[in-house]
Amino acid sequence: MSGILREHADAIVRGAISAVLPEAAVLRALEGKRFSGRIILVSVGKAAWRMAKAAGEALSWRMEKGIVLTKYGHVMGELPRCTCIEAGHPVPDENSFRGTQAVIDLVSGLSPSDTVLFLLSGGGSALFEKPLLPDCELKHINNQLLSCGADIVEINTIRKRLSAVKGGRFAGFCGGAHIEAIALSDVMGDRADMIASGPVSPDPSTAEDAKRIIQKYGIELSEAAKLLMSEETPKTLENVSFTVSGSVRELCRAAAKECAELGYTPVILTDSLCCEAREAGSFLASILKTHAFSEESLAFIAGGETVVRLRGSGKGGRNQELALSAALGIAGMENAAVFSFGSDGTDGPTDAAGGFADGTTAQTLSAAGISIERALSANDAYNALKACGGLIVTGPTGTNVNDAAVALLKRGRGSGR
Amino acid sequence: MSGILREHADAIVRGAISAVLPEAAVLRALEGKRFSGRIILVSVGKAAWRMAKAAGEALSWRMEKGIVLTKYGHVMGELPRCTCIEAGHPVPDENSFRGTQAVIDLVSGLSPSDTVLFLLSGGGSALFEKPLLPDCELKHINNQLLSCGADIVEINTIRKRLSAVKGGRFAGFCGGAHIEAIALSDVMGDRADMIASGPVSPDPSTAEDAKRIIQKYGIELSEAAKLLMSEETPKTLENVSFTVSGSVRELCRAAAKECAELGYTPVILTDSLCCEAREAGSFLASILKTHAFSEESLAFIAGGETVVRLRGSGKGGRNQELALSAALGIAGMENAAVFSFGSDGTDGPTDAAGGFADGTTAQTLSAAGISIERALSANDAYNALKACGGLIVTGPTGTNVNDAAVALLKRGRGSGR
Repeated sequence: MSGILREHADAIVRGAISAVLPEAAVLRALEGKRFSGRIILVSVGKAAWRMAKAAGEALSWRMEKGIVLTKYGHVMGELPRCTCIEAGHPVPDENSFRGTQAVIDLVSGLSPSDTVLFLLSGGGSALFEKPLLPDCELKHINNQLLSCGADIVEINTIRKRLSAVKGGRFAGFCGGAHIEAIALSDVMGDRADMIASGPVSPDPSTAEDAKRIIQKYGIELSEAAKLLMSEETPKTLENVSFTVSGSVRELCRAAAKECAELGYTPVILTDSLCCEAREAGSFLASILKTHAFSEESLAFIAGGETVVRLRGSGKGGRNQELALSAALGIAGMENAAVFSFGSDGTDGPTDAAGGFADGTTAQTLSAAGISIERALSANDAYNALKACGGLIVTGPTGTNVNDAAVALLKRGRGSGR
Repeated sequence: MSGILREHADAIVRGAISAVLPEAAVLRALEGKRFSGRIILVSVGKAAWRMAKAAGEALSWRMEKGIVLTKYGHVMGELPRCTCIEAGHPVPDENSFRGTQAVIDLVSGLSPSDTVLFLLSGGGSALFEKPLLPDCELKHINNQLLSCGADIVEINTIRKRLSAVKGGRFAGFCGGAHIEAIALSDVMGDRADMIASGPVSPDPSTAEDAKRIIQKYGIELSEAAKLLMSEETPKTLENVSFTVSGSVRELCRAAAKECAELGYTPVILTDSLCCEAREAGSFLASILKTHAFSEESLAFIAGGETVVRLRGSGKGGRNQELALSAALGIAGMENAAVFSFGSDGTDGPTDAAGGFADGTTAQTLSAAGISIERALSANDAYNALKACGGLIVTGPTGTNVNDAAVALLKRGRGSGR
């Protein structure tokens, strides 16, 4: 039984990650979409090159021109009709500003019958930037914001007003062209205005909010900066259609689809898991225990990003801890397995993407003289799982949409039916 | 919306606890059962009097005789045809031994056409005992068992062999009469042989096991004790029919039934929850967040017994911590609530049975200057919940079948549909 559960786990991991790769995410978002008029491609972020290539191929490269603006080392070759620009990340540099200006020049002069295909991925906030104030003044404001006790929403309210392209402002450069935006999300909850600071998303914060924050924390501003605070950001953007693709929600849905194909009835519990990794493992194990005698094979799916409380100096990651902790709860169950993986293929400072445990894991480790409790206390899930073949290794995947944990229950011998 | 969610929570708590009260549990277990021949009633444990009264009324007191053996202060009045005996708990005393002997005398001389209605509840292990060795020797063996590092299964394997009524042996006194056993379980997992040390349950442990344990830990035994170790306990008991009633599983099912009556689609996630209370709260909150836009009202139910990691010196209990922690995760959701309660009506060293939180709890507390994070760090959930009307108070219920946590999601305005 266990061999089959591991095979199923590997298939589910592969299938789920494939579905949220930049290429797949772009293709899914483009499905059924037709564009008339000219198409201009703008692709920004760490996955910009891969997204642009996928979109270009899907559209048979019928875009007129394009710019790919990505991190150093992320351009994999030339793309038809596209200029590829590499720039600084996580700190913007001159190339970020030059690249951003090139994008603004590219889209100026468009008309409402044209389309800007705007592809966004993680890192876009640093790569895509046109500051409205000199660098030294921005730094002075930033330092004040970080030290005054303002929360992240307050900080972003101010920062958006210091940029010519953030907070929906980039949309204003496109001459009323239709903007078809596709974002690869690594932000939990998929709030469009949070991805890359929302260059084409209406800004929920107001000039009134900004002034209140400046006053509340006594932030020092130049006259120019004060003027910027009073300028309003776009509140509606009717020429923009926005699709978030490749999110943790899609990771969960893709995992569910794989599970269904393998004969499990999938149940997506959550895609915003944020509790402690080992406790999530225990919770999932207790769900399996209760359903041990189910008449059908079941797959409970929980996506999100758990946390690890560091107590020891061992090697591991949140996905590995989750799986190892679950091993205790499902010990002895012939028909149960729990596994968890990071969609980027990396779990903590290890070469594994996550961990797998089934009903035999506890016994196997015990026979090898390894205590699960002790391994968990030492945050040493990696070595424990390694000893029982419980590591999930995928290598870097080129996407990052958080993690998914899956609890499998196979109807069969182990269920006593 | 919140007012309604709180009303629903109170109704669910009331309904679920009612279903696992000793009276309800006995009545449900007796449903559809018919007895011919004589009926002898034996009721043992802390809930013995209430179980006996319920059974007596259900059978119109047609039992011939009966004995109720319960803890001091737990006899609430006379019962027809029954002798009520109070005895020592948690440490057995002379009255325990006398009462147990009276039960043995009562059932001797029965024949296979008779029925012993055997009602068991928590505390039965101490109240129902006939030791096979003098007290001083039992203490000597017990002390060795507790200090040698033996686990609970090993300890019980030895202890059962030192008793004339445990490990299935009481069944042997009943002259082949049919034994209809009904147990009120406070043991997670409902293993019959664990409830009150299983007086009428086949014993899975063998004399061989016992000898191995004695040898493994070098336990000193008298010749008489050695003889006892080699005597086998019953491995099958065909005259016994055993029903576990009033378990945490039934608590969950009853909660699910109440939820369904209030319009929620109930989902029993688990009835063996055992992770950290606050992390379970976070997990349940993340489930609600993901289903916030569900087309139907949902109720996710998790029964079991969570644990609290003590870090502060505040006042609280595991159910209160679970609810308070969930308040963070569902903050701002108009249509969500998480509550958790102990079926015995007691949560930690407080006068509350548990706690309730909804989407307004975090804001209410913040406005009152109370930080949820700080309250959780101080293990002070009681005072935080008290400040926002989030305590669930039932008073002692007279049953104890662990806890249930419920996460409610009401389809309505808050779901945006």
